[in-house]
Amino acid sequence: MAQHKPTLYIIKLGGGLIDQPAALEQFLTSFATLLPAVSPATPAYSVLVHGGGKLATDMATTLGIPQQLKEGRRITDSETLKLVTMVYAGYINKNLVASLQAKGCPALGLSGADGNLIAAVKRAANPIDYGWVGDPVSVNTDLLDALLRNNTTPVIAPITHNKEGQLLNTNADTIAQTIAVAMSTFYRVELIYTFEKKGVLTDLNDPNSVISSITKDSYRHLKENNSIHTGMVPKLDNAFAALDAGVATVRIGHAHELALLLKGQSGTIITHG
Amino acid sequence: MAQHKPTLYIIKLGGGLIDQPAALEQFLTSFATLLPAVSPATPAYSVLVHGGGKLATDMATTLGIPQQLKEGRRITDSETLKLVTMVYAGYINKNLVASLQAKGCPALGLSGADGNLIAAVKRAANPIDYGWVGDPVSVNTDLLDALLRNNTTPVIAPITHNKEGQLLNTNADTIAQTIAVAMSTFYRVELIYTFEKKGVLTDLNDPNSVISSITKDSYRHLKENNSIHTGMVPKLDNAFAALDAGVATVRIGHAHELALLLKGQSGTIITHG
Repeated sequence: MAQHKPTLYIIKLGGGLIDQPAALEQFLTSFATLLPAVSPATPAYSVLVHGGGKLATDMATTLGIPQQLKEGRRITDSETLKLVTMVYAGYINKNLVASLQAKGCPALGLSGADGNLIAAVKRAANPIDYGWVGDPVSVNTDLLDALLRNNTTPVIAPITHNKEGQLLNTNADTIAQTIAVAMSTFYRVELIYTFEKKGVLTDLNDPNSVISSITKDSYRHLKENNSIHTGMVPKLDNAFAALDAGVATVRIGHAHELALLLKGQSGTIITHG
Repeated sequence: MAQHKPTLYIIKLGGGLIDQPAALEQFLTSFATLLPAVSPATPAYSVLVHGGGKLATDMATTLGIPQQLKEGRRITDSETLKLVTMVYAGYINKNLVASLQAKGCPALGLSGADGNLIAAVKRAANPIDYGWVGDPVSVNTDLLDALLRNNTTPVIAPITHNKEGQLLNTNADTIAQTIAVAMSTFYRVELIYTFEKKGVLTDLNDPNSVISSITKDSYRHLKENNSIHTGMVPKLDNAFAALDAGVATVRIGHAHELALLLKGQSGTIITHG
């Protein structure tokens, strides 16, 4: 009886927006006010997942913490872990929560350590040692469900723990997807990734070349014709994996257009087809 | 029927302990394991409130944020607020939570902004402008009650908000007391302040000159005889104010001795008498 599950929106705030105060303000207003309007007859359950923006990198420079990259990915050494814990779970998370509260959204900030929300394992050091990076292994769905039913809106920072006292840095897209899959047992989950483009584009030089809908079949054709930028392939592979694991829909679109995205009037919607 | 209320321990972790890893570890082990043992027959509800330790001050130096003091108290300018939000609500809070989780305590970290847990007003700029400092005005007791009954142990950082999007720096002792008073409507609250002395001393040079019990009457005599260090007077005045407002007992003792404190075998217990 899947159609009787309440709808839960899991919305990933694109990293770039955190560094743009006016755009962030607009996004948070949409998040706080539009979700209840989308489904006025039923409770609008929602979760916000955020990344870090440039603030962590800027602060690493100020503090003199060298940022190592391997194959384009940041290595989380001990000092960097301390930094991202402060910036993501402290500064950004608490400011997002305070802003949402001011807009009438009952936001409550959490890291993966809080209430054992997301347990992770440290990624193996072979072939590349990424440092204190964690891959999620479990979600405390009971806690999340209790918070949602208690009329709170979880705002989740991309920090997890290994259940042995160690915090771990975890990709925010992965957090959003992991939570979406886990919660799909109890909710009809709509997973929405916002970023700085209007959706999946056929031409990276044309910001309006948005593919409005992608199904498994059309995805195969798009890949065969090289009509999708290779940078989007992992995101889309993950989207289809989420659908296979029970998520109802995945949408990808511009953070400036959350209102239109929620109404299905902008962005790319990804479905089984 | 006050005797039928469940007992709630609100424990303030003394600031100094945060900078001593071995002592902190021992404290957290006591917190995680002894509270359930104190009242095996009934649920042991507890809340941990923490301050900031020296880490914020050390990091201010590293970041080149000048720390202004007026009459011995730190001024929270915008950069300092950012710093304490990162350090208190991010680094310290999440590491405490991860450590407690590893010890089997279902810890969940919160600032006062989260779920509107503690709303505060910015302190008036006259006669002294302390900057972004907040004095609590309300506690979301429903949220705290729901979390406790959901088998989570709130771990609270001393950051509040003004409900208009502004975070505020708030004294951790004040947070502990404010929560204790608010929750005393639903619980028999035991408020425990840990610090770096064994209790209230008659002789500051003799660490064992602990006054085991102080009542309103004995407090008057102690003050008349100048037997209490003036630095303790505000703490004790606040303790009696908490008792007047419904808190069952207030205890003050050494963070190294939490186990003994909980059993009433160490520290100073403050009661109406």
